[in-house]
Amino acid sequence: MPIVTVYMWAGVSNEAKKKIISGITKVFEEVGIPRHAVEVIVVEVPKENWGVGGELASEKFKELKPP
Amino acid sequence: MPIVTVYMWAGVSNEAKKKIISGITKVFEEVGIPRHAVEVIVVEVPKENWGVGGELASEKFKELKPP
Amino acid sequence: MPIVTVYMWAGVSNEAKKKIISGITKVFEEVGIPRHAVEVIVVEVPKENWGVGGELASEKFKELKPP
Amino acid sequence: MPIVTVYMWAGVSNEAKKKIISGITKVFEEVGIPRHAVEVIVVEVPKENWGVGGELASEKFKELKPP
Amino acid sequence: MPIVTVYMWAGVSNEAKKKIISGITKVFEEVGIPRHAVEVIVVEVPKENWGVGGELASEKFKELKPP
Amino acid sequence: MPIVTVYMWAGVSNEAKKKIISGITKVFEEVGIPRHAVEVIVVEVPKENWGVGGELASEKFKELKPP
Repeated sequence: MPIVTVYMWAGVSNEAKKKIISGITKVFEEVGIPRHAVEVIVVEVPKENWGVGGELASEKFKELKPP
Repeated sequence: MPIVTVYMWAGVSNEAKKKIISGITKVFEEVGIPRHAVEVIVVEVPKENWGVGGELASEKFKELKPP
Repeated sequence: MPIVTVYMWAGVSNEAKKKIISGITKVFEEVGIPRHAVEVIVVEVPKENWGVGGELASEKFKELKPP
Repeated sequence: MPIVTVYMWAGVSNEAKKKIISGITKVFEEVGIPRHAVEVIVVEVPKENWGVGGELASEKFKELKPP
Repeated sequence: MPIVTVYMWAGVSNEAKKKIISGITKVFEEVGIPRHAVEVIVVEVPKENWGVGGELASEKFKELKPP
Repeated sequence: MPIVTVYMWAGVSNEAKKKIISGITKVFEEVGIPRHAVEVIVVEVPKENWGVGGELASEKFKELKPP
């Protein structure tokens, strides 16, 4: 523990995944949890499967991309 | 809030995704939550990764398809 | 299938739970899924366990309540 | 009920999926739950989306593969 | 890996939790995964937060109890 | 997006929750995501509902506590 699940739009770069995973792990180290105990899963979900305010993110945020 | 995660068999049409996302959003509006606060994620899972009663959905429900 | 998980702030009334569960079930019926196949789980999370924009919902949205 | 979600590295063989789904279903039968009520979902996550101890599983466990 | 999340009605006995957790762990051992790598989380959800076919489990399955 | 779910043993202090929520939010800001778009949910699970290597965390890690 802890187990962290991150839902993001699909297409996240490998560099961003690394920063997210190492960054989140550090956050838990700073509250006293050993780093080996931290597990982080990044679940990529296509923008057309993601709704915000009733609209598909693929239409509402056409120009936006994941990091 | 709320955050809604929908697990479905893979292969959902874009039209069905839209109806599901806008429909679920309306359900929350009807209990007084502003629509911009509703986030819905559709996670598509292949039928051969989905078990019902100990069997794969890909074998038990061979003829069925997602909407 | 489908399986729907709804995360909301803790303290949802029974009446709202009923409306949410029956409403979401109807959304799936309308895209052709038999109602007996729809499972909805409402997970209530205390406002002090919910962060938006880096702040606890219990502080950022002090006055707001779940339906 | 119950609903079981299994997160694993992507690339699980169909044979392993079957064993996992039927095996987990039996575990619940043994505590008195009818098998038709057990639903199991296997979510496959690429190793480069999975962090352990701050590192990507694709780098930390280069040689390991899912069953 | 793997990480297993089990949603059940609230009120599961400690004995049943033990059987579920050790049983699921064995299922993964049998497909070649070392037992120390298996993490299982049992999330208990009140029956009045669980909908099946549009009805609350607390009303539809009044007489049923978790193991 | 993103939506982050954190599973931890129950009993996390409010101070730790704040650090976890603000820390994770900063991780995403650093890869270019606006902070208002980051939602973090901390789900606290009793140690007797959490299995590691087939044993309950409440027995295996008797002396350990969440932050």
